[in-house]
Amino acid sequence: MSGVVDRLSLWYDYYARPSHLLALAAHFLSGPRTRTFMTLGLLGIERPFFLRRVSATVPSALLLETSMASFAHASGTENLSPASIETTDEVVLTGDRPTGPLHLGHLAGSLLRRVELQRRFAQHVLVADLQALTDNAGRPSHVSEHVIEVIADYLAVGIDPYLTTISLQSELPALAELTVLYLNLVTVARLERNPTVKAEIETRGFARDIPAGFFCYPVSQAADITGFRGTLVPVGEDQLPMIEQSNEIVRRINRLAERNVLPESKAILSAAPRLPGADGRKASKSLKNVISLSASPDEIRAFVASMYTDPAHNRASDPGNVDGNVVFAYLDAFDSRTDEITELKSRYRRGGLGDVAVKARLVDVLETVVAPIREQRTRLIADRHYLRQVLREGTLRARAVTSSVLNDVRSAFALRPRRVSRRRMSLGFSE
Amino acid sequence: MSGVVDRLSLWYDYYARPSHLLALAAHFLSGPRTRTFMTLGLLGIERPFFLRRVSATVPSALLLETSMASFAHASGTENLSPASIETTDEVVLTGDRPTGPLHLGHLAGSLLRRVELQRRFAQHVLVADLQALTDNAGRPSHVSEHVIEVIADYLAVGIDPYLTTISLQSELPALAELTVLYLNLVTVARLERNPTVKAEIETRGFARDIPAGFFCYPVSQAADITGFRGTLVPVGEDQLPMIEQSNEIVRRINRLAERNVLPESKAILSAAPRLPGADGRKASKSLKNVISLSASPDEIRAFVASMYTDPAHNRASDPGNVDGNVVFAYLDAFDSRTDEITELKSRYRRGGLGDVAVKARLVDVLETVVAPIREQRTRLIADRHYLRQVLREGTLRARAVTSSVLNDVRSAFALRPRRVSRRRMSLGFSE
Repeated sequence: MSGVVDRLSLWYDYYARPSHLLALAAHFLSGPRTRTFMTLGLLGIERPFFLRRVSATVPSALLLETSMASFAHASGTENLSPASIETTDEVVLTGDRPTGPLHLGHLAGSLLRRVELQRRFAQHVLVADLQALTDNAGRPSHVSEHVIEVIADYLAVGIDPYLTTISLQSELPALAELTVLYLNLVTVARLERNPTVKAEIETRGFARDIPAGFFCYPVSQAADITGFRGTLVPVGEDQLPMIEQSNEIVRRINRLAERNVLPESKAILSAAPRLPGADGRKASKSLKNVISLSASPDEIRAFVASMYTDPAHNRASDPGNVDGNVVFAYLDAFDSRTDEITELKSRYRRGGLGDVAVKARLVDVLETVVAPIREQRTRLIADRHYLRQVLREGTLRARAVTSSVLNDVRSAFALRPRRVSRRRMSLGFSE
Repeated sequence: MSGVVDRLSLWYDYYARPSHLLALAAHFLSGPRTRTFMTLGLLGIERPFFLRRVSATVPSALLLETSMASFAHASGTENLSPASIETTDEVVLTGDRPTGPLHLGHLAGSLLRRVELQRRFAQHVLVADLQALTDNAGRPSHVSEHVIEVIADYLAVGIDPYLTTISLQSELPALAELTVLYLNLVTVARLERNPTVKAEIETRGFARDIPAGFFCYPVSQAADITGFRGTLVPVGEDQLPMIEQSNEIVRRINRLAERNVLPESKAILSAAPRLPGADGRKASKSLKNVISLSASPDEIRAFVASMYTDPAHNRASDPGNVDGNVVFAYLDAFDSRTDEITELKSRYRRGGLGDVAVKARLVDVLETVVAPIREQRTRLIADRHYLRQVLREGTLRARAVTSSVLNDVRSAFALRPRRVSRRRMSLGFSE
């Protein structure tokens, strides 16, 4: 529950509807707690005093009710049960490399989960522009241009900047300092054994020309996870070695410090399989087999038309294969009428259902999913000032958290803590 | 000419002799220029205005004369010629790993040269505590404890905090950020080929257990050199590959930025050979074959007595070997009566000069060298507040320089510059 007043004022600035303020305040008071110790810049007072006073005077049942109504109104997600609102010490960390607008694979694979997680836990989302530079150093503007696009994607799908702290990696110097400190705790041999690094080296065809930054990427990721005191990290199975590497560093730091300065983190594994690209290969912007979250109806039609199905399924009457069929993979991900999908699949397998019919259904489904995101995104991208403001507020909060973690880690290395500034610090990206 | 008023006030604080202030002001006005754009914190005004006004009203010949007198008085080096005072854009960078008090090998190899260089160029000396952690991560307090000792050594040998900016690596976050950015520009294969890293890996017996931080050490060193816009780096021949690595990164950054944001650096090679340890092996604190700059007369005698000479030279009348003879190596380094040394060497070679006699001479010579340093150092170490103050002032100046370099490098990566704060920033090591 970081910076309630910051959030209120931001909300007020943007929506300019004072009548929402009380409901919103109630909403945040019932929300998840983070361990940030932010000052409430606007009032010039510290969070604990303010919150304790307010929560003591408002009955909690009322709070919860008001909060639900306000949340449903604000972000259009009506079907959250009050039971899903918990107070917990867990901190969720996720992030994206801003190398282009996000696509439907991101939506199914991680974005929707974040929208759900933000209601239950403190959540940080890191726009990992420095990490994107590890294999884009030759074209850095490709990275910087996409930062604001990614923020627009986040907000358009329902990530709520009042529940989720969105920050920019290159504006968090503490993460670079943590990386440099952690590099002393990991051997070269250990990095060479990291299966994720091994696999990525093969995929990207670096051979011996791996940039050192890419090679050290598990260490930088450990800095990200621990820098936010992340305890829950939603990942794919292939990313588990990254969490293990991070926890090894955590244990080493805690041994050095002779107390638990950092928490270990756990993976949240996704049940859903990863969505393929239209051609059936791995979904990837560079392979041009994905579709953005703000695709037009025409783009959706073209995307679905290009989808790989079953090459042996020439006529509608032929029996067809559902496994590896991209159209069904997308229906599984986005069509909530699961009974009908099961029925469609068996008809397709038997023969008698043409690709044209299944694709037409998928076009409708995707249009239903994309239309509200497209609409929100168009509105958001027209107000870049607001998007920068969201990133700025989140990054300032993230600076406070990461600087305090850096102090703890510095103490393990017998380096003295620095004072964590209460003033608003200068950021590179604000005007 | 960074922060004239800072320096004056510091001087005033410590020596409390107001009559020196004018001479000192003149001294700094004729001294080397650095490119730091510091604010003069005490007056609250910016350097360019203040300096321009003052230099316009004082005749420059007078300035030079006063400055010489003041310098000779202040640090006891009477024999500098006015010709050695130059105005130049070169910036010298050197540094030490604070893993113990400095020893006589440091004095001969680098400290005396720095005392000379500070009169001719802007000079930065970096106390590289983070770099010392790359192979001391298991005992970090070993590093932090020695920081103040090293500052005392610097000042005791005549490094002048008004001419040389002394700063602490772990308090310069911009250096960590530069390291992380540069890691993207260097391949793993390139690091593996670095002869200095190769050699150090053998010397230290890391085999495959090299800490990644140590492996990436040339990149961190490039961050140090470029972070201060260093153009002259006094090094041994074995360190030349480090400069080459740094310059490769500089060229890469300048190509990315499409303008020269960073200068390349040149090595200043030492003519003097490296001093061996007492046992003839490489001088090293861990081998216990070195002697500190504040050694007592007894310690000097014991150190010289333990020196390796010529094992075949049993009696004074035997002919002896001068090459590889540690006593003569130290006489070459510290005895300025070179004619007498040449004569002694040929007598030793012929036979008729015993180890006892040569060692007695060396004891006298070392006592003459060490006595004033020991005296200064005892006085300085008793005033830790002043030593911390020196480090604090230097580190604040260094923060301004390194932050401005970071902004330039960020621009090459299409990252926006951050505002370089004019306020005094919080440091970890000040009370």
